[in-house]
Amino acid sequence: MNLNEEVEVLKGVPIFSKIEPAKLKLIAFTGERMTFGTGQEVCHQGDPGDSMYVILGGVADVLIDTPSGQLQVAQLKKNGFFGETAILCDAPRNATIKASDSLVTLRISKDMFYRLVTEVPTVAIEMMRELAHRVEDANQKLREANKAA
Amino acid sequence: MNLNEEVEVLKGVPIFSKIEPAKLKLIAFTGERMTFGTGQEVCHQGDPGDSMYVILGGVADVLIDTPSGQLQVAQLKKNGFFGETAILCDAPRNATIKASDSLVTLRISKDMFYRLVTEVPTVAIEMMRELAHRVEDANQKLREANKAA
Repeated sequence: MNLNEEVEVLKGVPIFSKIEPAKLKLIAFTGERMTFGTGQEVCHQGDPGDSMYVILGGVADVLIDTPSGQLQVAQLKKNGFFGETAILCDAPRNATIKASDSLVTLRISKDMFYRLVTEVPTVAIEMMRELAHRVEDANQKLREANKAA
Repeated sequence: MNLNEEVEVLKGVPIFSKIEPAKLKLIAFTGERMTFGTGQEVCHQGDPGDSMYVILGGVADVLIDTPSGQLQVAQLKKNGFFGETAILCDAPRNATIKASDSLVTLRISKDMFYRLVTEVPTVAIEMMRELAHRVEDANQKLREANKAA
């Protein structure tokens, strides 16, 4: 895929949707495109992490360790992102991410991440929006779990 | 409190900590300082919301409606913030916030919020950091609730 095609793909990703073409080229150029086969791990719970990933294609399983083994807690699809918590909170990976099917991701390093959200406020706003939705979703599930208990 | 004293107070708030003094003056000048007495509501679950609040002093109870009445799910303290979800997700207030004690807040309008995170990337980064922690906390509680069920 050449740079212009890559830019077209990135335009479809909500957190990048409002970025001007020149900045998208920068992301396409500096981000590392990675492909994973079915069952292959992108990152492992507990490992240190210095990058986040945007899903350009395919599906990823989100797995967490439990006393009785790995438990799938979510699935992430095209245009989703993961790994930002390790960057933002300076914490180890909070889940294992595994390709459920063939998976294509754009890996964004910590440095690039901070450069992006600093230079392109719309990326920061779209990420805040997604994080606020995740807080809402998790709290909603928590209310239901407490109701059922 | 004069503008310089207000700037000193804002410097102590983590999401504003890395902002240059001129920008802090802008926040102090445009943000609306509001004081609530014990038991007084800052916002009510289900209402439309077009502002967020930073707690400059006091404690606020976070209450949600349940079939058996209001349930306190959290307490927010000095330097905490709330109300950002209504702005970011264009959603009604997801909880009722009530002054647990005398409460002093800085009300930041939606327009000011977007101006702030656009002009001052560190505010966006600190907010993303806090939101990422909230996702983590909620997921952690969810895991525990599911374990107990």
